[in-house]
Amino acid sequence: MLEHFKVPADIAVKVPVDRLRAATEAVFQKCGVPQKEAELATDVLMFADQHGIDTHGVSNMLRSYVSQYNTGALNPDPTMSIVKETASTALVDGGGGLGLMTAPKAMEIAIEKARESGTGVVSIRNSGHLGAAGYHALMAADQDMIGWCMTAGGNSMMPTFGAEPKLGTNPIAFAAPADEEPPFMFDAAMTSIAGNKIGLASRLGRPLGPGWVANEDGSPNMDGGAASNFAANSLRTQLPLGSTRELGSHKGYSLGVMVEILCGQLSFAPGFADQTLRRRAHFVAAYSIDAFGDVDEFKRNMDGMLKGLRDTKPIPGHDQVYYAGLPEHFEGIKRGKEGVPLHPEVIDWFRSISAEFEIPFDLT
Amino acid sequence: MLEHFKVPADIAVKVPVDRLRAATEAVFQKCGVPQKEAELATDVLMFADQHGIDTHGVSNMLRSYVSQYNTGALNPDPTMSIVKETASTALVDGGGGLGLMTAPKAMEIAIEKARESGTGVVSIRNSGHLGAAGYHALMAADQDMIGWCMTAGGNSMMPTFGAEPKLGTNPIAFAAPADEEPPFMFDAAMTSIAGNKIGLASRLGRPLGPGWVANEDGSPNMDGGAASNFAANSLRTQLPLGSTRELGSHKGYSLGVMVEILCGQLSFAPGFADQTLRRRAHFVAAYSIDAFGDVDEFKRNMDGMLKGLRDTKPIPGHDQVYYAGLPEHFEGIKRGKEGVPLHPEVIDWFRSISAEFEIPFDLT
Repeated sequence: MLEHFKVPADIAVKVPVDRLRAATEAVFQKCGVPQKEAELATDVLMFADQHGIDTHGVSNMLRSYVSQYNTGALNPDPTMSIVKETASTALVDGGGGLGLMTAPKAMEIAIEKARESGTGVVSIRNSGHLGAAGYHALMAADQDMIGWCMTAGGNSMMPTFGAEPKLGTNPIAFAAPADEEPPFMFDAAMTSIAGNKIGLASRLGRPLGPGWVANEDGSPNMDGGAASNFAANSLRTQLPLGSTRELGSHKGYSLGVMVEILCGQLSFAPGFADQTLRRRAHFVAAYSIDAFGDVDEFKRNMDGMLKGLRDTKPIPGHDQVYYAGLPEHFEGIKRGKEGVPLHPEVIDWFRSISAEFEIPFDLT
Repeated sequence: MLEHFKVPADIAVKVPVDRLRAATEAVFQKCGVPQKEAELATDVLMFADQHGIDTHGVSNMLRSYVSQYNTGALNPDPTMSIVKETASTALVDGGGGLGLMTAPKAMEIAIEKARESGTGVVSIRNSGHLGAAGYHALMAADQDMIGWCMTAGGNSMMPTFGAEPKLGTNPIAFAAPADEEPPFMFDAAMTSIAGNKIGLASRLGRPLGPGWVANEDGSPNMDGGAASNFAANSLRTQLPLGSTRELGSHKGYSLGVMVEILCGQLSFAPGFADQTLRRRAHFVAAYSIDAFGDVDEFKRNMDGMLKGLRDTKPIPGHDQVYYAGLPEHFEGIKRGKEGVPLHPEVIDWFRSISAEFEIPFDLT
């Protein structure tokens, strides 16, 4: 499955992490983003690139951000504000900036509140795309807390029995620390597959799988086939996790609604009452483990559970069982040494944007 | 789908809600449960019976509770205690009582904390089965809060690529209030189907659907078939929501792990580090909407979203799109008038337990 979305090894260009980081920071700064903010945004993007979450890294997302800065859809130097807060909650207005920077700052607020009062729950409006939600959830895990991050917006997911999209892909990320084991880090769209993966499959000429999108009449397509055989707007006809009612699509659909509520309704963001296409909002939360008991004991117990999951007897044809965050951990080590494999087309984009922005190009 | 699990109309005996309630309370009291606790437990069970959640009501669960009281596995008059707390969190020990009563009391603690400090997050150990998790989540919605409830335990779910069960079915319930619309109330196992439904299908002689359980070698069964064709322990080979890796089973599996962490690890409950079969723990949380903004505005916005979901154009063969909680709302009105349809076998059980406990039998 993961192979499906990888840049083919024979054409991939491996770029050292540091070089890709420097090039990305330079692009953000040329868009008017202050240096510290550019570093933060790059850190979020590079987390995805380094850990194999290619759909949410530099290669798939940066050009869209640049275009949004160019059109003025994003504010490169926003003023973030707390609209309302209590001991354990905050409603944050992102000032129209990119979620890559809004979400980690909101998570810092959540972590600080959790340190003081046990939990911190923050709903966020007026903020753009936040990259890989797992990054923000992991911030809490790094502070010995349980972390959540969700993001909602756009109409991509078909409700169960529905013939038109009414929800975003609405990912849920959740992280918790362990001791010797890499942390548990889950991050996934509540559609059967991430929207970016459909776009990526289309771009790479790969087929769409059964259960990913709807037929023309809105009914679940359970046969799959060439991307070109589906409506051009297949990103707007995604099936919920579970794909059909019989397989549990009402669960993916309802988890999607839950994400709309926590992100959009709880932040009173415009567009969530009438489900307009251009709405967007986020949610982050941190629960202090120390508020419940001994942190070291918790982490040792997590080790036991996570090792137990890894040690599950595998089914025929598979070598091993994983837990969420484990493949990303191993990929992070590998790419840290070998570099990030980029499609030549992405290298070309960097070359041309570097010329346009008059910054040095040294990725290859 | 829902029809699949209903008692056939031609043999169902409709019992008025009040009579079933009185009979159930009497049974709890004969098990040694004090009157107020018996009323609470009955209220939780009857919520399921009245709203069409037959798997988690009197008919499917009460005899199991009676048997656990008889063997001493459950304490009928437990002392619940707060092991540790902060302004917004608590670790609760249920004293070995039934979760039907532990969970609502823990939710009351969560609601009180949310009223004071914005949120209340409570992890619960040493507590039995909690019935329909949606009941507890709705308690928060009734107080103009967002409510969560989760419960973990037992080994029923196969990890993705795994040939043996390592997780419970691990339901997530989530509720939020609206104004004129019935509240959003989601409650579902993170397996592709609730474990109780597999048991119920087996008992009613109905087939198991594709994507519900694993084959003998642990691989996902995507053909379905007669219950008798599956391993006798099919309850212990349930597939995660998503069924196969290609359809997103790693998401159902990981959401299941998330539930284990919030319930079992955060409450430091025994058995969660080594995934023993008899472990069990819960989690409830309440987020005060007032902490984020105007409650009336929130509810009006929820109305807009929920009506928008209801008004989604349906696919061919379907009259309407629902949201979670809406079918249960309508069924609750219907059964309130017409009574709860019970299988004659359940009536027989009540007749015999009434004789054994020397309480009057007047269900029919």
